[in-house]
Amino acid sequence: MSGAVDAGSARKMSCGPRLDLQALPGVPIVEPGDDLAQLAWEALARASIVLADGDVLVLASKVISRAENRFVDLSTVEASARAVALAAEVDKDPRVVELILRDTSEVSRKARGVLVVRHRLGFIAANASIDLSNAHPAHAAPGSGPWMLILPESPDASAERLRAALALRSTANIGIVVTDSLGRPFRMGTVGAAIGVAGLPPLWDRRGEPDLFGRELETTVTGLADQVAAAADLVAGQANEGRAFVHVRGLTFEPEDATVAKGASALYRPAAQDLYA
Amino acid sequence: MSGAVDAGSARKMSCGPRLDLQALPGVPIVEPGDDLAQLAWEALARASIVLADGDVLVLASKVISRAENRFVDLSTVEASARAVALAAEVDKDPRVVELILRDTSEVSRKARGVLVVRHRLGFIAANASIDLSNAHPAHAAPGSGPWMLILPESPDASAERLRAALALRSTANIGIVVTDSLGRPFRMGTVGAAIGVAGLPPLWDRRGEPDLFGRELETTVTGLADQVAAAADLVAGQANEGRAFVHVRGLTFEPEDATVAKGASALYRPAAQDLYA
Repeated sequence: MSGAVDAGSARKMSCGPRLDLQALPGVPIVEPGDDLAQLAWEALARASIVLADGDVLVLASKVISRAENRFVDLSTVEASARAVALAAEVDKDPRVVELILRDTSEVSRKARGVLVVRHRLGFIAANASIDLSNAHPAHAAPGSGPWMLILPESPDASAERLRAALALRSTANIGIVVTDSLGRPFRMGTVGAAIGVAGLPPLWDRRGEPDLFGRELETTVTGLADQVAAAADLVAGQANEGRAFVHVRGLTFEPEDATVAKGASALYRPAAQDLYA
Repeated sequence: MSGAVDAGSARKMSCGPRLDLQALPGVPIVEPGDDLAQLAWEALARASIVLADGDVLVLASKVISRAENRFVDLSTVEASARAVALAAEVDKDPRVVELILRDTSEVSRKARGVLVVRHRLGFIAANASIDLSNAHPAHAAPGSGPWMLILPESPDASAERLRAALALRSTANIGIVVTDSLGRPFRMGTVGAAIGVAGLPPLWDRRGEPDLFGRELETTVTGLADQVAAAADLVAGQANEGRAFVHVRGLTFEPEDATVAKGASALYRPAAQDLYA
Protein backbone atom coordinates (compact mmCIF):
# COMPACT_ATOMS: atom_id res chain seq x y z
CA MET A 1 0.00 0.00 0.00
CA SER A 2 2.95 2.31 -0.62
CA GLY A 3 3.87 3.92 -3.89
CA ALA A 4 4.82 7.14 -5.57
CA VAL A 5 2.52 10.06 -5.05
CA ASP A 6 1.59 12.57 -7.67
CA ALA A 7 3.47 15.84 -7.50
CA GLY A 8 0.15 17.68 -7.65
CA SER A 9 -0.19 17.13 -3.95
CA ALA A 10 2.57 19.59 -3.11
CA ARG A 11 0.28 22.62 -2.89
CA LYS A 12 0.15 24.45 0.42
CA MET A 13 -2.66 23.08 2.48
CA SER A 14 -3.77 23.20 6.10
CA CYS A 15 -6.74 22.64 8.36
CA GLY A 16 -7.48 24.77 11.37
CA PRO A 17 -8.61 23.39 14.73
CA ARG A 18 -12.24 23.59 13.61
CA LEU A 19 -14.10 21.99 10.74
CA ASP A 20 -17.78 22.70 10.24
CA LEU A 21 -20.03 20.80 7.85
CA GLN A 22 -23.58 21.70 6.94
CA ALA A 23 -26.04 20.09 4.54
CA LEU A 24 -27.63 23.06 2.80
CA PRO A 25 -31.36 23.31 3.42
CA GLY A 26 -34.26 23.37 1.01
CA VAL A 27 -32.62 21.83 -2.05
CA PRO A 28 -35.26 20.19 -4.23
CA ILE A 29 -34.79 16.78 -5.83
CA VAL A 30 -32.45 17.41 -8.73
CA GLU A 31 -33.87 16.63 -12.17
CA PRO A 32 -32.24 16.40 -15.61
CA GLY A 33 -31.24 19.81 -16.88
CA ASP A 34 -31.18 21.50 -13.49
CA ASP A 35 -28.53 24.18 -13.00
CA LEU A 36 -26.48 22.87 -10.06
CA ALA A 37 -24.56 26.11 -9.59
CA GLN A 38 -27.80 28.07 -9.30
CA LEU A 39 -29.29 25.49 -6.91
CA ALA A 40 -26.14 25.60 -4.75
CA TRP A 41 -26.03 29.38 -4.82
CA GLU A 42 -29.66 29.66 -3.71
CA ALA A 43 -29.14 27.05 -0.99
CA LEU A 44 -26.10 28.92 0.33
CA ALA A 45 -28.18 32.09 0.52
CA ARG A 46 -30.94 30.23 2.41
CA ALA A 47 -28.29 29.12 4.93
CA SER A 48 -26.91 32.71 5.09
CA ILE A 49 -23.51 31.41 4.01
CA VAL A 50 -21.22 33.75 2.09
CA LEU A 51 -18.56 31.67 0.35
CA ALA A 52 -15.06 32.24 1.76
CA ASP A 53 -11.57 31.14 0.69
CA GLY A 54 -11.05 27.47 1.55
CA ASP A 55 -14.72 26.53 1.56
CA VAL A 56 -15.58 23.22 -0.08
CA LEU A 57 -18.91 22.17 -1.56
CA VAL A 58 -19.46 18.43 -1.56
CA LEU A 59 -22.13 16.67 -3.58
CA ALA A 60 -22.90 13.04 -4.27
CA SER A 61 -22.22 11.80 -7.80
CA LYS A 62 -25.87 10.75 -7.87
CA VAL A 63 -26.90 14.40 -7.75
CA ILE A 64 -24.73 15.19 -10.78
CA SER A 65 -25.92 12.08 -12.61
CA ARG A 66 -29.51 13.22 -12.15
CA ALA A 67 -28.73 16.74 -13.38
CA GLU A 68 -26.83 15.33 -16.38
CA ASN A 69 -29.64 12.86 -17.16
CA ARG A 70 -27.53 9.74 -16.76
CA PHE A 71 -30.67 7.64 -16.39
CA VAL A 72 -30.96 4.44 -18.39
CA ASP A 73 -34.21 2.55 -18.89
CA LEU A 74 -33.09 -1.02 -18.30
CA SER A 75 -35.84 -2.38 -20.55
CA THR A 76 -34.06 -0.74 -23.51
CA VAL A 77 -30.66 -2.32 -22.78
CA GLU A 78 -29.53 -5.24 -24.95
CA ALA A 79 -27.02 -7.53 -23.27
CA SER A 80 -23.94 -8.57 -25.24
CA ALA A 81 -22.82 -12.20 -25.36
CA ARG A 82 -20.08 -11.37 -22.85
CA ALA A 83 -22.59 -9.79 -20.48
CA VAL A 84 -24.93 -12.79 -20.78
CA ALA A 85 -22.11 -15.22 -19.95
CA LEU A 86 -20.81 -13.16 -17.03
CA ALA A 87 -24.34 -12.65 -15.71
CA ALA A 88 -24.90 -16.39 -15.66
CA GLU A 89 -21.58 -16.84 -13.83
CA VAL A 90 -22.35 -14.35 -11.03
CA ASP A 91 -26.14 -14.68 -11.07
CA LYS A 92 -27.13 -11.16 -12.03
CA ASP A 93 -29.50 -9.60 -14.58
CA PRO A 94 -27.64 -9.69 -17.95
CA ARG A 95 -28.85 -6.18 -18.78
CA VAL A 96 -27.42 -4.85 -15.51
CA VAL A 97 -24.13 -6.63 -16.24
CA GLU A 98 -24.16 -5.06 -19.71
CA LEU A 99 -24.49 -1.60 -18.15
CA ILE A 100 -21.68 -2.39 -15.69
CA LEU A 101 -19.37 -3.65 -18.45
CA ARG A 102 -19.94 -0.51 -20.52
CA ASP A 103 -18.32 1.47 -17.67
CA THR A 104 -15.65 -1.13 -16.86
CA SER A 105 -12.00 -1.24 -17.91
CA GLU A 106 -11.36 -4.60 -16.21
CA VAL A 107 -13.16 -6.98 -13.86
CA SER A 108 -11.28 -7.01 -10.55
CA ARG A 109 -13.14 -9.72 -8.61
CA LYS A 110 -16.28 -11.75 -9.22
CA ALA A 111 -18.35 -14.03 -7.04
CA ARG A 112 -21.98 -15.00 -6.78
CA GLY A 113 -23.91 -11.71 -6.73
CA VAL A 114 -20.72 -9.66 -6.68
CA LEU A 115 -18.98 -7.90 -9.53
CA VAL A 116 -16.11 -5.62 -8.50
CA VAL A 117 -14.57 -3.73 -11.38
CA ARG A 118 -12.10 -1.05 -12.25
CA HIS A 119 -14.34 1.71 -13.54
CA ARG A 120 -13.32 3.37 -16.80
CA LEU A 121 -12.64 6.45 -14.59
CA GLY A 122 -9.88 4.50 -12.80
CA PHE A 123 -11.21 3.58 -9.36
CA ILE A 124 -12.35 0.17 -8.09
CA ALA A 125 -16.05 -0.17 -7.28
CA ALA A 126 -18.75 -2.80 -6.92
CA ASN A 127 -21.16 -2.85 -9.88
CA ALA A 128 -19.28 0.09 -11.48
CA SER A 129 -21.13 2.23 -8.91
CA ILE A 130 -24.31 2.07 -10.95
CA ASP A 131 -27.30 2.99 -8.82
CA LEU A 132 -29.63 0.01 -9.13
CA SER A 133 -32.35 1.41 -6.90
CA ASN A 134 -34.68 2.49 -9.69
CA ALA A 135 -34.30 6.19 -8.88
CA HIS A 136 -36.49 7.28 -11.78
CA PRO A 137 -36.42 10.74 -13.33
CA ALA A 138 -39.47 13.00 -13.23
CA HIS A 139 -39.88 12.51 -17.00
CA ALA A 140 -40.26 8.73 -16.66
CA ALA A 141 -43.33 7.51 -18.53
CA PRO A 142 -45.73 5.27 -16.63
CA GLY A 143 -44.71 1.64 -17.13
CA SER A 144 -41.16 2.56 -18.17
CA GLY A 145 -38.04 1.32 -16.44
CA PRO A 146 -36.78 -0.02 -14.16
CA TRP A 147 -34.39 2.93 -14.26
CA MET A 148 -30.70 2.75 -13.47
CA LEU A 149 -28.50 5.76 -12.81
CA ILE A 150 -24.93 5.58 -14.12
CA LEU A 151 -22.03 7.80 -13.07
CA PRO A 152 -21.38 11.14 -14.75
CA GLU A 153 -19.30 11.05 -17.93
CA SER A 154 -16.50 12.91 -16.11
CA PRO A 155 -17.01 13.79 -12.44
CA ASP A 156 -13.82 15.89 -12.52
CA ALA A 157 -15.20 17.93 -15.42
CA SER A 158 -18.57 18.24 -13.67
CA ALA A 159 -16.79 19.47 -10.52
CA GLU A 160 -14.78 21.97 -12.53
CA ARG A 161 -17.90 23.26 -14.31
CA LEU A 162 -19.61 23.82 -10.96
CA ARG A 163 -16.49 25.51 -9.56
CA ALA A 164 -16.22 27.79 -12.60
CA ALA A 165 -19.93 28.66 -12.50
CA LEU A 166 -19.69 29.61 -8.82
CA ALA A 167 -16.54 31.64 -9.58
CA LEU A 168 -18.79 33.90 -11.69
CA ARG A 169 -20.80 34.63 -8.54
CA SER A 170 -18.05 34.75 -5.87
CA THR A 171 -14.34 35.57 -5.87
CA ALA A 172 -13.67 33.06 -3.07
CA ASN A 173 -11.16 30.29 -3.80
CA ILE A 174 -13.29 27.19 -3.20
CA GLY A 175 -13.13 23.47 -3.80
CA ILE A 176 -15.67 21.00 -5.15
CA VAL A 177 -15.72 17.31 -4.22
CA VAL A 178 -17.96 14.78 -5.97
CA THR A 179 -18.49 11.70 -3.84
CA ASP A 180 -19.46 8.09 -4.17
CA SER A 181 -20.15 5.52 -1.46
CA LEU A 182 -17.60 2.76 -1.91
CA GLY A 183 -17.15 -0.62 -0.27
CA ARG A 184 -13.63 -1.55 0.74
CA PRO A 185 -11.47 -4.64 0.99
CA PHE A 186 -10.74 -5.62 4.60
CA ARG A 187 -13.32 -3.33 6.20
CA MET A 188 -17.10 -3.50 6.56
CA GLY A 189 -19.45 -0.71 5.57
CA THR A 190 -19.25 1.85 2.82
CA VAL A 191 -17.45 5.17 3.11
CA GLY A 192 -17.75 8.33 1.09
CA ALA A 193 -14.84 8.73 -1.34
CA ALA A 194 -13.94 11.37 -3.90
CA ILE A 195 -14.46 10.56 -7.59
CA GLY A 196 -14.43 14.17 -8.77
CA VAL A 197 -12.34 17.06 -7.47
CA ALA A 198 -11.87 20.67 -8.52
CA GLY A 199 -10.08 23.48 -6.72
CA LEU A 200 -9.08 21.41 -3.70
CA PRO A 201 -5.83 19.39 -3.73
CA PRO A 202 -6.90 15.71 -3.86
CA LEU A 203 -3.95 14.68 -1.70
CA TRP A 204 -2.41 16.50 1.23
CA ASP A 205 1.33 16.10 1.19
CA ARG A 206 2.72 16.60 4.67
CA ARG A 207 6.22 15.36 3.90
CA GLY A 208 8.77 17.71 5.35
CA GLU A 209 6.44 19.32 7.88
CA PRO A 210 8.11 18.76 11.22
CA ASP A 211 6.05 17.25 14.00
CA LEU A 212 6.20 18.46 17.57
CA PHE A 213 9.56 16.81 18.06
CA GLY A 214 11.09 18.53 15.07
CA ARG A 215 11.59 15.35 13.07
CA GLU A 216 10.04 14.87 9.66
CA LEU A 217 6.67 13.19 9.69
CA GLU A 218 6.74 9.53 8.89
CA THR A 219 3.22 9.06 7.54
CA THR A 220 3.14 11.69 4.97
CA VAL A 221 0.40 11.87 2.39
CA THR A 222 -3.26 12.05 3.37
CA GLY A 223 -6.17 11.24 1.07
CA LEU A 224 -7.54 14.71 1.68
CA ALA A 225 -10.49 14.72 -0.72
CA ASP A 226 -11.47 11.21 0.42
CA GLN A 227 -11.52 12.37 4.04
CA VAL A 228 -13.64 15.38 3.10
CA ALA A 229 -15.98 13.01 1.23
CA ALA A 230 -16.23 10.66 4.23
CA ALA A 231 -16.99 13.55 6.57
CA ALA A 232 -19.64 14.98 4.25
CA ASP A 233 -21.25 11.57 3.81
CA LEU A 234 -22.15 11.66 7.50
CA VAL A 235 -24.36 14.71 7.06
CA ALA A 236 -25.51 13.94 3.52
CA GLY A 237 -26.66 10.47 4.52
CA GLN A 238 -27.54 7.95 1.86
CA ALA A 239 -30.84 9.33 0.63
CA ASN A 240 -28.80 12.26 -0.46
CA GLU A 241 -31.17 13.87 -2.91
CA GLY A 242 -32.66 15.64 0.11
CA ARG A 243 -29.30 17.01 1.20
CA ALA A 244 -27.66 17.47 -2.16
CA PHE A 245 -24.97 19.96 -1.11
CA VAL A 246 -22.73 19.85 1.94
CA HIS A 247 -20.78 22.99 2.78
CA VAL A 248 -17.42 22.44 4.52
CA ARG A 249 -15.49 25.24 6.23
CA GLY A 250 -12.14 25.01 7.99
CA LEU A 251 -9.63 24.07 5.31
CA THR A 252 -7.05 26.39 3.78
CA PHE A 253 -5.56 25.76 0.37
CA GLU A 254 -3.90 27.67 -2.42
CA PRO A 255 -5.65 28.33 -5.72
CA GLU A 256 -4.98 25.76 -8.42
CA ASP A 257 -2.31 26.55 -10.90
CA ALA A 258 -1.60 24.99 -14.23
CA THR A 259 1.67 23.38 -13.10
CA VAL A 260 0.18 20.79 -10.77
CA ALA A 261 -1.94 17.75 -11.38
CA LYS A 262 -5.53 17.95 -10.27
CA GLY A 263 -8.70 15.93 -10.26
CA ALA A 264 -9.67 12.77 -8.45
CA SER A 265 -7.46 10.51 -10.55
CA ALA A 266 -4.51 11.50 -8.32
CA LEU A 267 -6.31 9.39 -5.68
CA TYR A 268 -6.35 6.23 -7.79
CA ARG A 269 -3.39 3.92 -7.28
CA PRO A 270 -2.06 2.59 -10.59
CA ALA A 271 -2.48 -1.19 -10.78
CA ALA A 272 1.27 -1.63 -11.26
CA GLN A 273 1.84 -0.08 -7.81
CA ASP A 274 -0.97 -1.98 -6.14
CA LEU A 275 -0.22 -5.15 -4.17
CA TYR A 276 -3.92 -6.04 -4.24
CA ALA A 277 -4.72 -5.38 -7.91
CA MET B 1 -16.72 -6.19 -1.00
CA SER B 2 -20.09 -7.40 0.16
CA GLY B 3 -20.76 -9.64 3.10
CA ALA B 4 -22.83 -10.11 6.20
CA VAL B 5 -22.87 -7.24 8.64
CA ASP B 6 -22.76 -7.57 12.37
CA ALA B 7 -26.11 -7.17 14.09
CA GLY B 8 -24.53 -4.61 16.41
CA SER B 9 -25.08 -2.03 13.73
CA ALA B 10 -28.84 -2.07 14.23
CA ARG B 11 -28.90 0.61 16.91
CA LYS B 12 -30.83 3.78 16.17
CA MET B 13 -28.50 6.32 14.69
CA SER B 14 -28.76 9.58 12.81
CA CYS B 15 -26.83 12.67 11.84
CA GLY B 16 -28.35 16.12 11.68
CA PRO B 17 -27.68 18.62 8.89
CA ARG B 18 -24.67 19.96 10.81
CA LEU B 19 -21.50 18.32 12.02
CA ASP B 20 -18.91 20.36 13.92
CA LEU B 21 -15.42 19.16 14.72
CA GLN B 22 -12.93 20.89 16.96
CA ALA B 23 -9.44 19.92 18.05
CA LEU B 24 -9.39 20.78 21.74
CA PRO B 25 -6.83 23.45 22.64
CA GLY B 26 -3.95 23.40 25.05
CA VAL B 27 -3.44 19.65 25.39
CA PRO B 28 0.17 18.93 26.35
CA ILE B 29 2.22 16.15 24.79
CA VAL B 30 0.89 12.98 26.39
CA GLU B 31 3.45 11.00 28.42
CA PRO B 32 3.32 7.53 29.95
CA GLY B 33 0.98 7.41 32.92
CA ASP B 34 -1.02 10.49 31.97
CA ASP B 35 -4.73 10.41 32.82
CA LEU B 36 -6.41 10.82 29.42
CA ALA B 37 -9.88 11.37 30.89
CA GLN B 38 -8.58 14.21 33.06
CA LEU B 39 -6.66 15.74 30.12
CA ALA B 40 -9.77 15.52 27.93
CA TRP B 41 -11.99 16.95 30.65
CA GLU B 42 -9.69 19.94 31.20
CA ALA B 43 -9.39 20.52 27.45
CA LEU B 44 -13.19 20.49 27.06
CA ALA B 45 -13.43 23.09 29.82
CA ARG B 46 -10.81 25.27 28.11
CA ALA B 47 -12.93 25.12 24.94
CA SER B 48 -16.09 25.89 27.01
CA ILE B 49 -17.67 22.65 25.77
CA VAL B 50 -20.20 20.91 27.99
CA LEU B 51 -20.55 17.30 26.83
CA ALA B 52 -23.96 16.55 25.34
CA ASP B 53 -25.70 13.36 24.21
CA GLY B 54 -24.29 12.20 20.88
CA ASP B 55 -20.92 13.93 21.27
CA VAL B 56 -17.90 11.91 20.18
CA LEU B 57 -14.31 12.33 21.33
CA VAL B 58 -11.75 11.14 18.80
CA LEU B 59 -8.12 10.48 19.60
CA ALA B 60 -5.26 8.97 17.66
CA SER B 61 -4.05 5.55 18.80
CA LYS B 62 -0.62 7.17 19.14
CA VAL B 63 -1.94 9.30 22.00
CA ILE B 64 -3.17 6.23 23.85
CA SER B 65 0.04 4.33 23.11
CA ARG B 66 2.02 7.16 24.69
CA ALA B 67 -0.22 7.26 27.78
CA GLU B 68 0.00 3.47 28.11
CA ASN B 69 3.80 3.52 27.65
CA ARG B 70 3.81 1.33 24.54
CA PHE B 71 7.32 2.55 23.71
CA VAL B 72 9.93 0.00 22.77
CA ASP B 73 13.67 0.72 22.69
CA LEU B 74 14.67 -0.92 19.42
CA SER B 75 18.21 -1.53 20.66
CA THR B 76 16.79 -4.01 23.19
CA VAL B 77 14.85 -6.04 20.60
CA GLU B 78 16.27 -9.41 19.52
CA ALA B 79 15.16 -10.57 16.10
CA SER B 80 13.96 -14.15 15.71
CA ALA B 81 15.20 -16.32 12.86
CA ARG B 82 11.87 -15.76 11.06
CA ALA B 83 12.23 -11.99 11.42
CA VAL B 84 15.82 -12.09 10.13
CA ALA B 85 14.77 -14.07 7.06
CA LEU B 86 11.76 -11.88 6.31
CA ALA B 87 13.80 -8.72 6.88
CA ALA B 88 16.34 -9.87 4.31
CA GLU B 89 13.53 -10.64 1.87
CA VAL B 90 11.89 -7.19 2.10
CA ASP B 91 15.02 -5.19 2.99
CA LYS B 92 14.03 -3.90 6.43
CA ASP B 93 15.71 -3.76 9.85
CA PRO B 94 15.32 -7.27 11.37
CA ARG B 95 14.47 -5.78 14.79
CA VAL B 96 11.67 -3.70 13.24
CA VAL B 97 10.36 -6.80 11.46
CA GLU B 98 10.51 -8.64 14.79
CA LEU B 99 8.33 -5.95 16.40
CA ILE B 100 5.92 -6.11 13.45
CA LEU B 101 5.66 -9.91 13.62
CA ARG B 102 4.89 -9.80 17.35
CA ASP B 103 1.69 -7.87 16.49
CA THR B 104 0.89 -9.86 13.34
CA SER B 105 -1.53 -12.75 12.87
CA GLU B 106 -0.62 -13.22 9.18
CA VAL B 107 1.43 -11.48 6.52
CA SER B 108 -0.95 -10.19 3.85
CA ARG B 109 1.47 -8.85 1.23
CA LYS B 110 5.19 -8.30 1.08
CA ALA B 111 7.46 -6.48 -1.34
CA ARG B 112 10.74 -4.61 -1.15
CA GLY B 113 10.33 -2.15 1.74
CA VAL B 114 6.69 -3.10 2.25
CA LEU B 115 5.17 -5.45 4.82
CA VAL B 116 1.37 -5.41 4.95
CA VAL B 117 -0.05 -7.61 7.69
CA ARG B 118 -3.23 -8.56 9.44
CA HIS B 119 -2.70 -7.08 12.89
CA ARG B 120 -3.49 -9.35 15.84
CA LEU B 121 -6.39 -6.92 16.47
CA GLY B 122 -7.94 -7.98 13.14
CA PHE B 123 -7.38 -5.13 10.69
CA ILE B 124 -4.94 -4.94 7.78
CA ALA B 125 -2.14 -2.38 8.10
CA ALA B 126 1.33 -1.66 6.75
CA ASN B 127 4.08 -2.42 9.30
CA ALA B 128 1.41 -3.45 11.86
CA SER B 129 0.88 0.30 12.32
CA ILE B 130 4.01 0.59 14.42
CA ASP B 131 5.17 4.19 14.59
CA LEU B 132 8.74 4.08 13.33
CA SER B 133 9.37 7.79 13.72
CA ASN B 134 11.38 7.57 16.94
CA ALA B 135 8.76 9.43 18.98
CA HIS B 136 10.65 9.04 22.23
CA PRO B 137 9.09 9.27 25.66
CA ALA B 138 10.13 11.99 28.11
CA HIS B 139 11.81 9.32 30.25
CA ALA B 140 14.15 8.26 27.45
CA ALA B 141 17.75 8.21 28.65
CA PRO B 142 20.33 10.01 26.52
CA GLY B 143 21.74 7.62 23.94
CA SER B 144 18.81 5.21 24.23
CA GLY B 145 16.62 4.15 21.35
CA PRO B 146 15.74 4.53 18.58
CA TRP B 147 12.25 4.28 20.07
CA MET B 148 9.29 2.68 18.37
CA LEU B 149 5.69 3.11 19.47
CA ILE B 150 3.42 0.07 19.13
CA LEU B 151 -0.38 0.06 19.21
CA PRO B 152 -2.30 -0.17 22.49
CA GLU B 153 -2.90 -3.68 23.82
CA SER B 154 -6.64 -3.22 23.20
CA PRO B 155 -7.82 0.06 21.65
CA ASP B 156 -11.45 -0.97 22.28
CA ALA B 157 -10.71 -1.44 25.99
CA SER B 158 -8.80 1.86 26.09
CA ALA B 159 -11.77 3.60 24.46
CA GLU B 160 -14.16 2.01 26.93
CA ARG B 161 -12.00 3.05 29.89
CA LEU B 162 -11.99 6.63 28.66
CA ARG B 163 -15.75 6.56 28.10
CA ALA B 164 -16.37 5.14 31.58
CA ALA B 165 -14.04 7.67 33.22
CA LEU B 166 -15.83 10.55 31.50
CA ALA B 167 -19.18 9.02 32.52
CA LEU B 168 -18.13 9.71 36.13
CA ARG B 169 -17.91 13.40 35.24
CA SER B 170 -20.86 13.78 32.83
CA THR B 171 -24.19 12.02 32.34
CA ALA B 172 -24.09 12.62 28.57
CA ASN B 173 -24.25 9.56 26.32
CA ILE B 174 -21.02 9.96 24.35
CA GLY B 175 -18.85 7.94 22.00
CA ILE B 176 -15.08 7.44 21.82
CA VAL B 177 -13.23 6.65 18.61
CA VAL B 178 -9.55 5.65 18.55
CA THR B 179 -8.01 6.24 15.14
CA ASP B 180 -5.12 5.11 13.05
CA SER B 181 -3.93 6.41 9.68
CA LEU B 182 -4.17 3.52 7.25
CA GLY B 183 -3.07 3.10 3.68
CA ARG B 184 -5.53 1.43 1.32
CA PRO B 185 -5.51 -0.85 -1.68
CA PHE B 186 -6.56 0.93 -4.88
CA ARG B 187 -6.34 4.45 -3.51
CA MET B 188 -3.45 6.80 -2.75
CA GLY B 189 -2.94 8.54 0.57
CA THR B 190 -3.77 7.49 4.09
CA VAL B 191 -7.13 8.02 5.76
CA GLY B 192 -8.12 7.99 9.39
CA ALA B 193 -9.87 4.75 10.37
CA ALA B 194 -11.31 3.47 13.64
CA ILE B 195 -9.36 0.79 15.53
CA GLY B 196 -11.11 1.37 18.85
CA VAL B 197 -14.73 2.27 19.49
CA ALA B 198 -16.84 2.72 22.61
CA GLY B 199 -20.35 4.10 22.98
CA LEU B 200 -20.81 4.88 19.28
CA PRO B 201 -22.14 2.20 16.90
CA PRO B 202 -19.19 1.24 14.66
CA LEU B 203 -21.51 0.68 11.69
CA TRP B 204 -24.58 2.66 10.68
CA ASP B 205 -27.22 0.32 9.35
CA ARG B 206 -29.59 2.22 7.10
CA ARG B 207 -31.35 -0.82 5.68
CA GLY B 208 -35.04 -0.29 5.69
CA GLU B 209 -34.94 3.49 5.93
CA PRO B 210 -36.88 4.73 2.91
CA ASP B 211 -35.25 7.32 0.70
CA LEU B 212 -37.08 10.30 -0.75
CA PHE B 213 -38.86 8.06 -3.23
CA GLY B 214 -40.15 5.72 -0.58
CA ARG B 215 -38.14 2.71 -1.72
CA GLU B 216 -35.69 0.98 0.56
CA LEU B 217 -32.16 2.25 0.33
CA GLU B 218 -29.87 0.17 -1.81
CA THR B 219 -26.54 1.03 -0.26
CA THR B 220 -27.21 0.27 3.27
CA VAL B 221 -24.47 0.01 5.82
CA THR B 222 -22.04 2.87 6.39
CA GLY B 223 -18.66 2.55 8.11
CA LEU B 224 -19.76 5.17 10.62
CA ALA B 225 -16.80 5.13 13.01
CA ASP B 226 -14.38 5.10 10.06
CA GLN B 227 -16.06 8.18 8.61
CA VAL B 228 -15.86 9.93 11.98
CA ALA B 229 -12.17 8.96 12.14
CA ALA B 230 -11.52 10.31 8.64
CA ALA B 231 -13.26 13.59 9.45
CA ALA B 232 -11.35 14.00 12.72
CA ASP B 233 -8.05 13.23 11.01
CA LEU B 234 -8.49 16.43 9.00
CA VAL B 235 -8.40 18.61 12.12
CA ALA B 236 -6.03 16.40 14.14
CA GLY B 237 -3.48 16.38 11.35
CA GLN B 238 -0.59 13.97 11.47
CA ALA B 239 1.53 15.57 14.19
CA ASN B 240 -1.38 14.76 16.38
CA GLU B 241 0.25 15.03 19.78
CA GLY B 242 -0.49 18.76 19.59
CA ARG B 243 -4.19 18.15 18.91
CA ALA B 244 -4.74 14.99 20.90
CA PHE B 245 -8.53 15.22 21.23
CA VAL B 246 -11.08 16.09 18.56
CA HIS B 247 -14.61 16.82 19.71
CA VAL B 248 -17.38 15.95 17.25
CA ARG B 249 -20.95 17.20 17.61
CA GLY B 250 -23.92 16.45 15.35
CA LEU B 251 -24.52 12.71 15.65
CA THR B 252 -27.39 11.08 17.53
CA PHE B 253 -27.18 7.51 18.80
CA GLU B 254 -28.73 5.35 21.46
CA PRO B 255 -26.79 4.25 24.52
CA GLU B 256 -25.05 0.91 24.19
CA ASP B 257 -26.83 -2.08 25.55
CA ALA B 258 -25.51 -5.48 26.34
CA THR B 259 -27.45 -7.19 23.55
CA VAL B 260 -25.50 -5.74 20.65
CA ALA B 261 -21.97 -6.17 19.48
CA LYS B 262 -19.65 -3.24 19.95
CA GLY B 263 -16.07 -2.26 19.40
CA ALA B 264 -14.05 -1.67 16.25
CA SER B 265 -13.86 -5.35 15.32
CA ALA B 266 -17.34 -5.02 13.77
CA LEU B 267 -15.53 -2.95 11.12
CA TYR B 268 -13.08 -5.71 10.19
CA ARG B 269 -14.19 -7.96 7.37
CA PRO B 270 -13.47 -11.62 8.09
CA ALA B 271 -10.95 -13.03 5.62
CA ALA B 272 -13.44 -15.69 4.50
CA GLN B 273 -15.78 -12.92 3.29
CA ASP B 274 -13.02 -10.87 1.67
CA LEU B 275 -12.36 -11.18 -2.06
CA TYR B 276 -9.00 -9.47 -1.59
CA ALA B 277 -7.69 -11.37 1.44
